[in-house]
Amino acid sequence: MTHPLRLGIAGLGTVGIGVVKIIRQKADLLAKRSGRPIEITAISARTRAKDRGISLSKYAWEDDPVALAERDDIDVFVELIGGSDGPAKEATEAAIAAGKDVVTANKAMLALHGQSIAEAAEDKGAALRFEAAVAGGIPVVKALTEGLAGNEITRIIGVMNGTCNYILTRMQSSGLAYQEVFAEANALGYLEADPRLDVDGIDAGHKLSLLSAIAFGTQVNFDGVRLEGIGRISIDDITQAADMGYRIKLLGVAQKTPRGLEQRMTPCLVPAISPLGQLEGGTNMVILEGDAVGQIVLSGAGAGEGPTASAVMSDVIDLARGIRVPTFGMPATELTTAPVAQSAVPAPYYLRFTLQDKPGALAKVATALGDAGVSINRMRQYGHDAQTAPVLIVTHTTTRDALDHALAQLPATGVVATDPVALRIEEL
Amino acid sequence: MTHPLRLGIAGLGTVGIGVVKIIRQKADLLAKRSGRPIEITAISARTRAKDRGISLSKYAWEDDPVALAERDDIDVFVELIGGSDGPAKEATEAAIAAGKDVVTANKAMLALHGQSIAEAAEDKGAALRFEAAVAGGIPVVKALTEGLAGNEITRIIGVMNGTCNYILTRMQSSGLAYQEVFAEANALGYLEADPRLDVDGIDAGHKLSLLSAIAFGTQVNFDGVRLEGIGRISIDDITQAADMGYRIKLLGVAQKTPRGLEQRMTPCLVPAISPLGQLEGGTNMVILEGDAVGQIVLSGAGAGEGPTASAVMSDVIDLARGIRVPTFGMPATELTTAPVAQSAVPAPYYLRFTLQDKPGALAKVATALGDAGVSINRMRQYGHDAQTAPVLIVTHTTTRDALDHALAQLPATGVVATDPVALRIEEL
Repeated sequence: MTHPLRLGIAGLGTVGIGVVKIIRQKADLLAKRSGRPIEITAISARTRAKDRGISLSKYAWEDDPVALAERDDIDVFVELIGGSDGPAKEATEAAIAAGKDVVTANKAMLALHGQSIAEAAEDKGAALRFEAAVAGGIPVVKALTEGLAGNEITRIIGVMNGTCNYILTRMQSSGLAYQEVFAEANALGYLEADPRLDVDGIDAGHKLSLLSAIAFGTQVNFDGVRLEGIGRISIDDITQAADMGYRIKLLGVAQKTPRGLEQRMTPCLVPAISPLGQLEGGTNMVILEGDAVGQIVLSGAGAGEGPTASAVMSDVIDLARGIRVPTFGMPATELTTAPVAQSAVPAPYYLRFTLQDKPGALAKVATALGDAGVSINRMRQYGHDAQTAPVLIVTHTTTRDALDHALAQLPATGVVATDPVALRIEEL
Repeated sequence: MTHPLRLGIAGLGTVGIGVVKIIRQKADLLAKRSGRPIEITAISARTRAKDRGISLSKYAWEDDPVALAERDDIDVFVELIGGSDGPAKEATEAAIAAGKDVVTANKAMLALHGQSIAEAAEDKGAALRFEAAVAGGIPVVKALTEGLAGNEITRIIGVMNGTCNYILTRMQSSGLAYQEVFAEANALGYLEADPRLDVDGIDAGHKLSLLSAIAFGTQVNFDGVRLEGIGRISIDDITQAADMGYRIKLLGVAQKTPRGLEQRMTPCLVPAISPLGQLEGGTNMVILEGDAVGQIVLSGAGAGEGPTASAVMSDVIDLARGIRVPTFGMPATELTTAPVAQSAVPAPYYLRFTLQDKPGALAKVATALGDAGVSINRMRQYGHDAQTAPVLIVTHTTTRDALDHALAQLPATGVVATDPVALRIEEL
């Protein structure tokens, strides 16, 4: 194959421009590596008249990404529009219907519609690749789908949202409250247009659901991910966790359990000295566990022009080289469904809440938890104002169900002033 | 493609048996992922009558690996014999001549003959893959060749010999001398039959030369790797380095410099708090730096049945899926040669040697180094017996050439009792 691979790129934000730059600046290197030239034929974005820092005049322009996707003179549709539905999905489906291969960075679209899109692609013999949708420049989709393909994957663990990790590590280093660091991150442009995607764990949950599908041969099930955001983490939690030798991370875990597939993206305490505990700022880290390989740890920049464009190019070069792998590592029609087993694996939990400052309040709480089957490892009241006192409890190992049941008994004690913050402790 | 991929496996040591086990125990999963069954047709090893823990009677047996490689009923020759020449090379070449694809774990063979074997394979349209040759189960060859294919690779850094890392971390934790820990490692079976392959850095140097070829598009040049072993590292060095906040690691670095390609595998001081500094025991870690992606860190088990078999299976499944990538990421005939530029990048150095306990000895050494253009940052004498005193020097940033020149002046001072140990300090 020496005819060029012709791309149509929809979406010219940071990542799209990053891809254009790589293709231009490294044309010779890419051709040597791919065995054929890689060319951009046509492009599309919301606004044509906008200074993007490089000249795009030599590429055909389409206002409508669907029209771009259907052009006869492209082989691969590169979808960098974003958003789970709307133009991104329409154009992707149009490209597949026209028999084009698709490379996308769109985790939301695949988390919600991955199964149907992958089935449509297979039906048409089109490839659908998404390295850039998970963990930026880290080639984790490839590592899982191909590098560890000889393994039964037992567990995936990861920090996959750089913005949350930035906020949490910045709270730790600065002592600033969540709201202040959130405002900083916003000012720095680190947050999605809808910041809930970041801080509620949705974006990271999307990514986890995609890796789960590959790892366990199951249909993407984003609804099956237990999601908790970082919005209730206080500087107290950060400090108390640090005192006990932990860091708080928005941690994704996916694993098969006897009860089904557990997927969760929740703030957890992890040992401060572990590689995950030491992860700073916007870096992502994914740990893949396989029955043969043991534990493989991958880390790198989780976002940004260069890293994400690097991941897009990995998929593009694969296609140029003739590499075709099923979207989720096996035919989409062979992916199974697994029962949802959220937090099936027991763990100790960190609890923080505020008590009415009444005599015997702490004892009442301890009794309520104990009666509900959750036993307490450590417990302390660490300061109080006139009416209320913050309390910290570390439980013995328990299931999340038992914990939730126990926490539901607390209001009846009449002494609990705030909803508890409950964070799982992962010893890793 | 639904016809099976038929393997001939030569070499039934730990890794070979690991591969057989995976293929047997996970036949259904592998077939789903590969789109076709993966089968073993025939096997070969030095001794037939040996209990390998599993029954091998259903596979055809060949005493001669060359005969195995040439069998009409195999598609892929899996070379797990080892050794740079002899039967491994003969059989690999025979397989290629017969148009078979080859999967090998043999770093020595490829480090010394990779260019000619890769050219022969290309000439025949045969694939030659070697994921298992570098860093055990870590899919680093794939990450570099495919995952980061859109990058100009700027540097590779890595700890790629688990045995050396075990010895060095064990010295650190136990306070035992090199010879004692070496004996321990030997008793535990961690060392190669010829332990110099491990402790002289040869095995790790082989691996680095293979990654270099992919990264920089250059022909494998193992002779161009500056090699230093760990045999002269004393417990003093470990302790002194720790006091200064460093750990000693057998560190591989490959990078393009204005003077040529620098490749070295030498013991270095790295910051104790860095991921490399914290690497314990037999774990390997490889850091890949690319112009778009920044820094990607990969770590995992560097050896052992499961991890290495996992890497072999990655290549086998690639072939079953029809994935074909040039051995070193681009056609072997397009790989260039680069001038050898060892230690082109300057750094500070750690020096340890023993002085005759004479008045003014330290001053003489300082003057000699200074006259030769190497300036001293820190210097201390840290104990002495009747006649001699150990001395520790940390230099300012200097080139290795300048340092070697300066060290060559020391004998003329008449006060230096032992050859200096000189270790590069890598701030990473």
